[in-house]
Amino acid sequence: MARTDRPTLAVVGATGAVGTVMLQILSQHADIWGEIRLIASPRSAGRKLAVRGEEVEVMALSEEAFDGVDVAMFDVPDEISAQWAPVAASKGAVVVDNSAAFRLDPDVPLVVPEVNPHAARVRPRGIVANPNCTTLSMIVAVGALHAEFGLRELVVSSYQAVSGAGRAGIDTLRQQMSLVAGTELGTNPGDVRRAVGDNTGPFPEPVALNVVPWAGSLREDGWSSEEMKVRDESRKILGLPDLKVAVTCVRVPVVTTHSLTVHARFQSEVTVDKAREILATAPGVVLFDNPAAGEFPTPADVVGTDPTWVGRVRRSLDDPAGLEFFVCGDNLRKGAALNTAQIAELVAQEFPPAA
Amino acid sequence: MARTDRPTLAVVGATGAVGTVMLQILSQHADIWGEIRLIASPRSAGRKLAVRGEEVEVMALSEEAFDGVDVAMFDVPDEISAQWAPVAASKGAVVVDNSAAFRLDPDVPLVVPEVNPHAARVRPRGIVANPNCTTLSMIVAVGALHAEFGLRELVVSSYQAVSGAGRAGIDTLRQQMSLVAGTELGTNPGDVRRAVGDNTGPFPEPVALNVVPWAGSLREDGWSSEEMKVRDESRKILGLPDLKVAVTCVRVPVVTTHSLTVHARFQSEVTVDKAREILATAPGVVLFDNPAAGEFPTPADVVGTDPTWVGRVRRSLDDPAGLEFFVCGDNLRKGAALNTAQIAELVAQEFPPAA
Repeated sequence: MARTDRPTLAVVGATGAVGTVMLQILSQHADIWGEIRLIASPRSAGRKLAVRGEEVEVMALSEEAFDGVDVAMFDVPDEISAQWAPVAASKGAVVVDNSAAFRLDPDVPLVVPEVNPHAARVRPRGIVANPNCTTLSMIVAVGALHAEFGLRELVVSSYQAVSGAGRAGIDTLRQQMSLVAGTELGTNPGDVRRAVGDNTGPFPEPVALNVVPWAGSLREDGWSSEEMKVRDESRKILGLPDLKVAVTCVRVPVVTTHSLTVHARFQSEVTVDKAREILATAPGVVLFDNPAAGEFPTPADVVGTDPTWVGRVRRSLDDPAGLEFFVCGDNLRKGAALNTAQIAELVAQEFPPAA
Repeated sequence: MARTDRPTLAVVGATGAVGTVMLQILSQHADIWGEIRLIASPRSAGRKLAVRGEEVEVMALSEEAFDGVDVAMFDVPDEISAQWAPVAASKGAVVVDNSAAFRLDPDVPLVVPEVNPHAARVRPRGIVANPNCTTLSMIVAVGALHAEFGLRELVVSSYQAVSGAGRAGIDTLRQQMSLVAGTELGTNPGDVRRAVGDNTGPFPEPVALNVVPWAGSLREDGWSSEEMKVRDESRKILGLPDLKVAVTCVRVPVVTTHSLTVHARFQSEVTVDKAREILATAPGVVLFDNPAAGEFPTPADVVGTDPTWVGRVRRSLDDPAGLEFFVCGDNLRKGAALNTAQIAELVAQEFPPAA
């Protein structure tokens, strides 16, 4: 395929929940791409999807599909990425991968453009990894504060939306909402469980009218894979391999937008005024914090937006070096598709137009 | 009124969400009471409520209503308690009060029978205070671990049920659930807010398909009253006036049962085996913690039960003196009515039957 003067982009996993948002973002952002090629599993091949106002036919994933591709954004299951990202890289594409397959690989940078853009330039395997959605929902705000105060410790708890589990998560909550509608709405013991029955979809327990302290798969010593990701990825992105991180991940009945409470301890005393000044001016962050006026972020307001929203900023009562705050971020946008697109755009700057 | 050989109990606020549960508990527990007198606002006077299998007519709150009362359980707004608890005490009743009016009064003990039962015996004002529901949802588990390891620091985040805001909270979630049922269920920006409109009841934002990082009223420096209660009450109950406590309170779309994530740091190294042994044997605590079998507490299972349920027990990855865990407690039972009844029963032991 002939090269245009602009780089060719492939979107792998174009038909999924995150892939759908990727196409929306590509249609909204400044158009820096030549061809945009849509790739998915063979059963989705032939479907037509809209991007940049045009219908584009989906191709089946194959080695040939990467011919002439400069940058490939992947949002597919870990094992598909593990198999196919190296194939795309071997064909000369820079892969921006949103699976967990390569995030902790020392030869793969893990990049958040507002925090560590420089890391995207060094990619021995031709792959750049995109962080987990929960990490991404807080890391831009945390990174801005770290740059000023020097981070020593994080204690975070998540309030994770069901769309973090993909379309199946959304469909499951929708089904459960209709099943509980005729019940006493959780007033009496067991009524939610009776109404929901076995319809728990990708979740281990009912999520409608409930919260579920589990996300991901079981790791050593009772930790969930999601919790380990938040710790390990935060350390790598911030360049703090010994950062103390305590995290508990909890699923809540919200469709889209992850929230987290953050207790952050820094190297020296912090002031709320300075923290607010940093958050108010940091790229990619919106400070929405005036409880006297009822202003703090919630998922209902944040869904569909790009930034990390921060509110409830307080100095820890019993630690002059500590801050408490609450963050919300759309897990399908900044938490997945947007950050992936931002990395791809960062990489695309390395492709000068043909003279 | 003639004294029987058993103490007379008054229930003040008998018609409210917590009062209703108080009457259920009095009907379920061993019957140690003589007369049980039901008291409420004048507009509820004359209603008949069931307790111990009998219909009892509600009396209007007045000084005379406390004639001959030995123990009075109060669940009414702070200002009503502030006015009437001293009246009841002046008439000779021991008041067990579930408002915030007296909790931090140095002359009023703040009691959790599993943690500091001895404190209930010293009550210079004739009043014993019952802690806030959020504090109560975790403190029995925290107290048991403190007794073994010596607590130094708590970082907690809450997932608070709407019934913490009383009947209005339940009714508001119920109404919002029906309003969002016809929407795209939170997939698109603004659809939850548009569906809910101004029907936010006692909450500052929509709570269906949302989480709201606010509970209570505004205190200094951006803290909420609910957050200050968790810190100050935990310190008083545990007898640790300098305990470091960081807390963020968040409302979630659950009808009844508060959950909390807890990061606890102790004076010396802890082991998960020992922590689990303590939690498995502590009175009032159920350890439900086997993620490999999908076992961890959630509100849907805990609602209607008495104990504090604990799961997800892990040693902090980066601190040998730290533990992470997740707790659930029914905020209307242990979080309010049950603990109040337990204190009343403790006090009743001081009234020997007439010889």
